[in-house]
Amino acid sequence: MNAAERRAREAPGDPLARLLAGSQRLIIVSNRGPLSFRRSRSDEWRATRGSGGLVTALSELGGLAPVTWVSAAMDAGDRAARAALATNAGPGKRLREVIASEMPGQDLELRLVDVEDDAWRAHYSVVANPFLWFLQHQLYQLPYEPRVDDALIDAWRDGYRVVNERLGTAAAEAAGRDGRPVVLLQDYHLYLAAAAVRAARPDALLLHFNHIPWPSVEAWQVLPQALRRVICEGLLANDILGFQTDRYATNFLLAAAAFVRDARVDPAGRNVRWHGRTIWVRSYPISLDPDALVAFAAGPKVAAWRKRLEERLERAGRPDVIVRVDRLEPSKNALRGFLAFEAMLKREPELRRRVRFIAVQSTSRERIAEYARYASEVREVVARVNGMADPDEQPIWLLDGSDYALAIAALQLARVVLVNPIVDGMNLVAKEAVLVGEPVLVLSETAGAAEQLAGDSLTVSAADIAGTRETLLEALRMPRDERLWHLRRLRNSVRTEDLGWWLARQLRDLAAVAEGRRPPSRQLRDATRRVEPIVFR
Amino acid sequence: MNAAERRAREAPGDPLARLLAGSQRLIIVSNRGPLSFRRSRSDEWRATRGSGGLVTALSELGGLAPVTWVSAAMDAGDRAARAALATNAGPGKRLREVIASEMPGQDLELRLVDVEDDAWRAHYSVVANPFLWFLQHQLYQLPYEPRVDDALIDAWRDGYRVVNERLGTAAAEAAGRDGRPVVLLQDYHLYLAAAAVRAARPDALLLHFNHIPWPSVEAWQVLPQALRRVICEGLLANDILGFQTDRYATNFLLAAAAFVRDARVDPAGRNVRWHGRTIWVRSYPISLDPDALVAFAAGPKVAAWRKRLEERLERAGRPDVIVRVDRLEPSKNALRGFLAFEAMLKREPELRRRVRFIAVQSTSRERIAEYARYASEVREVVARVNGMADPDEQPIWLLDGSDYALAIAALQLARVVLVNPIVDGMNLVAKEAVLVGEPVLVLSETAGAAEQLAGDSLTVSAADIAGTRETLLEALRMPRDERLWHLRRLRNSVRTEDLGWWLARQLRDLAAVAEGRRPPSRQLRDATRRVEPIVFR
Repeated sequence: MNAAERRAREAPGDPLARLLAGSQRLIIVSNRGPLSFRRSRSDEWRATRGSGGLVTALSELGGLAPVTWVSAAMDAGDRAARAALATNAGPGKRLREVIASEMPGQDLELRLVDVEDDAWRAHYSVVANPFLWFLQHQLYQLPYEPRVDDALIDAWRDGYRVVNERLGTAAAEAAGRDGRPVVLLQDYHLYLAAAAVRAARPDALLLHFNHIPWPSVEAWQVLPQALRRVICEGLLANDILGFQTDRYATNFLLAAAAFVRDARVDPAGRNVRWHGRTIWVRSYPISLDPDALVAFAAGPKVAAWRKRLEERLERAGRPDVIVRVDRLEPSKNALRGFLAFEAMLKREPELRRRVRFIAVQSTSRERIAEYARYASEVREVVARVNGMADPDEQPIWLLDGSDYALAIAALQLARVVLVNPIVDGMNLVAKEAVLVGEPVLVLSETAGAAEQLAGDSLTVSAADIAGTRETLLEALRMPRDERLWHLRRLRNSVRTEDLGWWLARQLRDLAAVAEGRRPPSRQLRDATRRVEPIVFR
Repeated sequence: MNAAERRAREAPGDPLARLLAGSQRLIIVSNRGPLSFRRSRSDEWRATRGSGGLVTALSELGGLAPVTWVSAAMDAGDRAARAALATNAGPGKRLREVIASEMPGQDLELRLVDVEDDAWRAHYSVVANPFLWFLQHQLYQLPYEPRVDDALIDAWRDGYRVVNERLGTAAAEAAGRDGRPVVLLQDYHLYLAAAAVRAARPDALLLHFNHIPWPSVEAWQVLPQALRRVICEGLLANDILGFQTDRYATNFLLAAAAFVRDARVDPAGRNVRWHGRTIWVRSYPISLDPDALVAFAAGPKVAAWRKRLEERLERAGRPDVIVRVDRLEPSKNALRGFLAFEAMLKREPELRRRVRFIAVQSTSRERIAEYARYASEVREVVARVNGMADPDEQPIWLLDGSDYALAIAALQLARVVLVNPIVDGMNLVAKEAVLVGEPVLVLSETAGAAEQLAGDSLTVSAADIAGTRETLLEALRMPRDERLWHLRRLRNSVRTEDLGWWLARQLRDLAAVAEGRRPPSRQLRDATRRVEPIVFR
């Protein structure tokens, strides 16, 4: 079976038809909706499409089936939109037209859920983003943080739980009189939402997909028993739990066994028996839409950026280009990436002329002290490496990552792409890079993408500065034939296991559950290639 | 079978007789020896006995069998002793007398191994203590550290490996013409030493006991593949690997499966097949010598300290006493302990009069920046809680932990003992506390001691400040009968599974391997009691 056949066979349409009866709508629940709204003074609506992977990933669905998308109204604009959507005439009608033009060809109904400011802030800015995100990315320095104190407990009770119940209840309401609601819940903001749906609709078919890492039992173990248990039990209200990788899925199974007293975990069958139900734990590595990306990459915005970069590279004497594209935040490990590059230039001084490291980085959450500290440490290393050289002569070019077209242009020009996160749910840059450019991919083992792509990448360990230096050298020296041979295999993998495949596997597994069968998707593979640039004896 | 019978049956003597032929000596290898030496100007030797748990634990052995103890000469005094021991007359003779008087009733031969200063420093101060210790206690903030760079790699090659080979070779030499050398290797300083013994004596019986935690695969995974593999393979040169807890043993099995390409791991049988040999992975929770401790606690030094403390408590109006005893370092979690106590006083202000928190803390490695920073954060919280009150009125009494007798006296007076490390190989304070005093034990789940003692302790999670506050309150309010009921069970557990038991199980398992049988010690139990002071919904 070739890639095209496999995609055709695993297209989302077929299981959708099996899942949805008559005019039934598929329900998506996520913290942030696909569009955010603003109303101008002249009462015109403006809708901005979210740039996140989640929105991109799920917005394909509205073209395949009628979708109701439940999310929180995040600000005044969203709340105004929510009020307008409750009406049929006037502003509501105009707003629906704006939505339709922004998400063309989709039968999409948005349900924006109102949440009080205090509850929202506690949910978003106390529990979900600093606490759960840091914990699951293992960014805490454990002697100091996290601190489970009254502030966190209150934010959990009056914020996180409230928002989860609100969204879960709204999803159940959206189901109306549907025979058996089919609900896709998203990510770490909503660990408790499925339980609220289940309470209202015990018959619902629920799949929660977690976009970020699920760390080992040890990482959770510093938390109160009741907290880690309630998180696991919240997730066990689903029928299927989806994770980015087999390792995260395994970690969840171990967590359920360790923390949920009456759960019976079957590691081989990859399921949990709990309160009379079976919960299936699966991996669905997320991906991108290859055709859309390739089309975008061939467009004028990218071409304009590429031209400017090429001119600058021409002035610099046509050096080889190492590229990284990411947010400047602690989990992405830019610090050690630049330290490895600095070590490479120290070892091979003539590369200072012949190589440039283009880092397309967007700033991220710099109001959080820890992020600001990290960014400043990174910039210090960059300043040290660049010294007093003229801009074009500087070894590291720091470019502003807020323009996606620039990032794609840089990837097109890359000889090597460095993706070395400490831990990362998936990392789509690795997949974008091989579709739009022809680089050697240097990939951290602890990026989720490694489960699919490590076999044709050069892998590094996150803390391994010396090894990353050696691997960057190896990547720069890789013969063209070898590079392209790996590239073909990487492209094939990304094209085969694309966004449609990601979605289709979830729907296929849900359809299996609906029909009383075991969801067919099991372990993906166990393919992290072992490369050892430095030998320890 | 009661405790006494069980101890008699599991005394070390019997397996020792089965292991050692004729005049054969048991060989111990550790980084630091049982005695450190200094020679005065008048050429008199002074030997100081190490205070560490390792030395205490193993020094019992010399009374049961002839022991040769191989360790590194750590300074000029040790090196002078090493030279003297090479002679029979004069200084060597006098030194042997000093050793005999310091370790009475023991047939103990010390082999001090010379190591160049540079190699020693690299081994001790670059690899073992900052790097492996921090990694295995999960104290790193991963975005910044560890950094595997040339400095670390050089220290590994020219320090850690050199010291390990030196000590391993010395152990093989010490075996001389013995039939089948029996060697007990100790702790994280010596992951590669067994391989050196094995290379010289393929027939040797080798057991490595690891005193500190062995973290999950994820914690190791940021390291270079070659480094984590070489650590695991170094350990697989042994016949038996001993860990403090079942969890650490399980973590090692998972690490071997993940990192050692040709290892076959049998999780149920708790062994690894590798290069034609079987390596057994077992837990031997370390303990103390109950009779010796109780005798010491009844002695005059402790009594003098207790009298002083009682007088001070009398002046303070006979408050209830919470006690902690530990080194002031990040893994012990004093910071959150004091924050929980502060929160308790805020919730129940009248306890400010009726309770004192006596913290007997010894300073530790304050030359390491991270330790100094931690100590200063802890002292800041203590200063805030104590405010401007007179010393006796202060809620927290910080006492200098360099005098062991003071620590024991404090434990004797404790109503509650708080042992809340983030992670701790074992934690002997928990075991000492229940033997010398009558406290409620508040114990972190992630202390190694929790596997044995959690069932009769109140358990807390390390990051759970609110839960620790509630648990301290619960402990203070526990009725006397209930406290003493748990105490009896705790004492029974500590007396049964004492230091002799720890040693006897290792020797029994080694004897089984020598006789071609499966070592009988398997999993201990799965008994972490679930206590949930705060309910999350």
